[in-house]
Amino acid sequence: MAQLRIALAQVNPTVGDLGGNADLIVAWSRRAAEAGAHLVAFPEMMLTGYPIEDLALRASFVQASQRALEQVARRLADEGLGDLPVVTGYVDRRAVSLVRTGQPAGSPLDAAAWLHGGEVLVRSAKHHLPNYGVFDESRVFVRGDRLPVVRLHGVDVATAVCEDLWQDGGPVSVTDTAGAGLLLVLNASPYERNKDDVRLELCARRAREAGCALAYVNMVGGQDELVFDGDSVIVGADGDLLARAPQFTEHLLVADLAVPAADPAARPGRVPADALDGTTITIDRRVLSPDPLPAYPVRPQELAEPLDDLAEVYGALVLGTRDYVRKNGFRSVLVGLSGGIDSALVTTIAADALGPDNVHVVMLPSRYSSEHSVSDAEELVKRQGVHARIVPIRGMVDAFEAEVELHGLAAENLQARIRATVWMGLSNEHGHLVLTGGNKSELATGYSTLYGDSAGGFAPIKDLVKTLVWDLSRWRNGRAGSDLPFLHPFTGPPIPEAIIAKEPSAELSPGQRDSDSLPPYEVLDPLLTDYVERDLGRDALIAAGHDPALVERVIRLVDLAEYKRRQYPPGPKVTSKNFGRDRRVPITNRWREPAAD
Amino acid sequence: MAQLRIALAQVNPTVGDLGGNADLIVAWSRRAAEAGAHLVAFPEMMLTGYPIEDLALRASFVQASQRALEQVARRLADEGLGDLPVVTGYVDRRAVSLVRTGQPAGSPLDAAAWLHGGEVLVRSAKHHLPNYGVFDESRVFVRGDRLPVVRLHGVDVATAVCEDLWQDGGPVSVTDTAGAGLLLVLNASPYERNKDDVRLELCARRAREAGCALAYVNMVGGQDELVFDGDSVIVGADGDLLARAPQFTEHLLVADLAVPAADPAARPGRVPADALDGTTITIDRRVLSPDPLPAYPVRPQELAEPLDDLAEVYGALVLGTRDYVRKNGFRSVLVGLSGGIDSALVTTIAADALGPDNVHVVMLPSRYSSEHSVSDAEELVKRQGVHARIVPIRGMVDAFEAEVELHGLAAENLQARIRATVWMGLSNEHGHLVLTGGNKSELATGYSTLYGDSAGGFAPIKDLVKTLVWDLSRWRNGRAGSDLPFLHPFTGPPIPEAIIAKEPSAELSPGQRDSDSLPPYEVLDPLLTDYVERDLGRDALIAAGHDPALVERVIRLVDLAEYKRRQYPPGPKVTSKNFGRDRRVPITNRWREPAAD
Repeated sequence: MAQLRIALAQVNPTVGDLGGNADLIVAWSRRAAEAGAHLVAFPEMMLTGYPIEDLALRASFVQASQRALEQVARRLADEGLGDLPVVTGYVDRRAVSLVRTGQPAGSPLDAAAWLHGGEVLVRSAKHHLPNYGVFDESRVFVRGDRLPVVRLHGVDVATAVCEDLWQDGGPVSVTDTAGAGLLLVLNASPYERNKDDVRLELCARRAREAGCALAYVNMVGGQDELVFDGDSVIVGADGDLLARAPQFTEHLLVADLAVPAADPAARPGRVPADALDGTTITIDRRVLSPDPLPAYPVRPQELAEPLDDLAEVYGALVLGTRDYVRKNGFRSVLVGLSGGIDSALVTTIAADALGPDNVHVVMLPSRYSSEHSVSDAEELVKRQGVHARIVPIRGMVDAFEAEVELHGLAAENLQARIRATVWMGLSNEHGHLVLTGGNKSELATGYSTLYGDSAGGFAPIKDLVKTLVWDLSRWRNGRAGSDLPFLHPFTGPPIPEAIIAKEPSAELSPGQRDSDSLPPYEVLDPLLTDYVERDLGRDALIAAGHDPALVERVIRLVDLAEYKRRQYPPGPKVTSKNFGRDRRVPITNRWREPAAD
Repeated sequence: MAQLRIALAQVNPTVGDLGGNADLIVAWSRRAAEAGAHLVAFPEMMLTGYPIEDLALRASFVQASQRALEQVARRLADEGLGDLPVVTGYVDRRAVSLVRTGQPAGSPLDAAAWLHGGEVLVRSAKHHLPNYGVFDESRVFVRGDRLPVVRLHGVDVATAVCEDLWQDGGPVSVTDTAGAGLLLVLNASPYERNKDDVRLELCARRAREAGCALAYVNMVGGQDELVFDGDSVIVGADGDLLARAPQFTEHLLVADLAVPAADPAARPGRVPADALDGTTITIDRRVLSPDPLPAYPVRPQELAEPLDDLAEVYGALVLGTRDYVRKNGFRSVLVGLSGGIDSALVTTIAADALGPDNVHVVMLPSRYSSEHSVSDAEELVKRQGVHARIVPIRGMVDAFEAEVELHGLAAENLQARIRATVWMGLSNEHGHLVLTGGNKSELATGYSTLYGDSAGGFAPIKDLVKTLVWDLSRWRNGRAGSDLPFLHPFTGPPIPEAIIAKEPSAELSPGQRDSDSLPPYEVLDPLLTDYVERDLGRDALIAAGHDPALVERVIRLVDLAEYKRRQYPPGPKVTSKNFGRDRRVPITNRWREPAAD
């Protein structure tokens, strides 16, 4: 057996910020060196951020990434870190690229490199390109076809990238053949509810298949709709969990491993291997330091406790919101506070993400606003200490109605649009990003006003069905005084109980209730989940126990609301389908689920 | 040689409308039979419309398509058309589908089938799946691996689908081996400027490679941002053009071909062939009628004259607008008419698409509107006979400003948002779809107001740079009295000359001119085209002759406007990058083109 101390740098890069991301690599490599690590690994596409989408097709961008990689290698050496092998993701391109219909321009690669001694030691790239869910990688990358195996202190360390772990065949399938002692996998794997369990099982299974320990370093942070949750792990060759980093926060996970020493007979050089997916992977062996280290005392194992389900969701919303605001150059947000539960939760998430002092709420009562709406909103402002302002909209509504006669829904929508116009005016005047309060039950059924309550820059709860909005509000109120790192230290429950308890209403017409237009959320939400996330058809929904008439009605509502959803701001993804890039349905679409035979 | 009369049904299906599309198949098959055709071919995915995107992943949808195919086969026979072979596109699935990470759920196929005698004779599917530009087919389809060759009146007719023509290898590459006399290609190929020339050359090249005549049937019609232009063609084995259908209109192209008779020694059955792309294609031979027909008199060749460049663009805008409105269930549109060129052209396109009686314009003068704006708009209304209404917004602006103090851009945006609120109110009240007036130069640089002038349901000129807006306006004025099928028969020029001649202004502040904020459009537009469509980086732009300071400024404007563009309504695509699905850039993106070395 040979000992190795590895450091997984679970950090938060920004898409396109090559300079800032390079700074992160140097800073966290220094921390790793200070912790005595023999190797530090960064996430997939660390240098460029992830996902870069069509930036990969821009020659100047790929070239800048290639140069930045070599610069960071030199800089590490210049700053005394040249002896520490640093493994990082970046975008590269195939040296010889064919211009062919159907092939991404410039043949970009989702690449990984070992940096050492001021130079790039070995390069490889992701083999399996995910092109499902939120991923469009067949569009922008070509396949890698190499498994680097670097001998470090007598341990053969193989590297692979993210999806290569998820799909059968490819580099991971030849790791066993290569006789590696450790498989290092660089990831940018976005959060989704319960995905952490799936990932850990996957790591354990692949470790057993590869017959070696597996270290999985994941990105952390928000990028548009995606939230990378970290949760980096190390498992042994038997699949047992050895070390685990916390979720939703940057972290250096340092662990001492004892793994089989490399076979000295395995010489440097390139050997082709059948990748069991119809392709050939070249095993590319390099030697940095052939001999195992003398025995040294090991550090205690670090095993962060995974968060429970609601804490995970809340953590994703806070991190996703904070990073969207910050990485887009904003410092403060504006929320239209109605007195209802949605805007109350959004305000709370914003206060947790940015601190109450960076949260500005505006209350815009109309002739239909109930008294409790204003007083409940004021109570929330008091509890959280956010900035608040009241702007009555009655005079504006009157001015429109003096010129244009509107009835029913058109008149209801007018109020919502006037409110949005005030939000956007204040946003433009003061530089706050507008947070949108809509939830997934509303988005799904189209129960919102285009350019009204759906306006804004980011929608923190767009992927929560209404019942989850309530659950999460109760959960947050129960965590006053908690030391979870993503919560602001409010001393009491931040959301007034009356706001959680009241019956939901849009308050756009006299005595209006959500239940006038929609079934009770306890009935609606499971149906929406089955239709949207599980993609069940009409018959399957009825077979699953949903009321046939309701199925008919809800399918129709969901199908007709596609245009509104397209215009909705992005928001953190927490389910398999958040109405973002993960579900792509034509706007012009006459398909209606057929009636049962 | 053997004779064959083929009919290409260049028709306009609607996504998801399986019943309506089946009706089209029957109706146009009858027309083909009446024209004495021996075979009729419909476009790719005729039965489902195209593109269906994630509907392909919905089991109930694929099943409905499979059933609809068998029903239409029976119905054709029931209605006396069973003897006419009908080739049509639809969505099918692989019989045995593996559930595997990375594979589309249910293994859907972009399929084609021959219908004959009330039954489905043979099925095949697209082999090459485009996953670039607007296409995401690796996401939703698996590859087909078969080339059907059906002997009809002694001619071996092979069939392939769309992309199989564009990429090397696959079914088209084994057509020569199969010894086919005719290759029939089913397409849903969207319009792009100058693409018709590329397509014709491609057909000619593939015909020569396959050593046989090639019949290319394309879809026509609008689907969200895509406009299928028709332009179906038939070329001989030497690549010579034999027949051509008109663009932007439904058409039955009937042509008599004389092609080599099939080799009687080639027996029915399946033979594998090397597809020259690392895969194997099965040649699947069937015999419907082994012997050539007795000689019969041929019809005259039909060769539609292709439209010139501006006519093509205008035709695409009219058809795209008409179909978006109609297929989404609207009958009328509303346009905010400012007196400027953009809204004038949009109104004209709408009048051409839907007839002036279905076009409602609203003029919303503010304190900054010039007198000529109102009078020019009124002159346009008079020339076109559209419905018009004036709604002054001064009172509404005052009501907002009484409650919220706004300056500079915030105050300018307020006016644009108030106008949009009126548009949307009238839209909700009267059921008109709002057409958005923004052009590509504005979209690119962010010179528009979120939830203001950018609001609406469809943006007919979103893919035209401003200089093209002028060119097209002049072109349209010059076509008064033309018999082009997509123009309304206005007797004089529909756009007042003063609107074309005036200096552009948003009229949101006193004496404002576009040139206060933007370079002259004659300078800006070519730079935008090079940056957005050609994807040139900073250095390449300067090398191409653009002013370095302007390059810096414009790149920054374009990069920062990504969020606004995401919220923009769809509009007909006429270039390679219309800021829709064809250009995918993260919102959160710190990438700035590097300065020259």
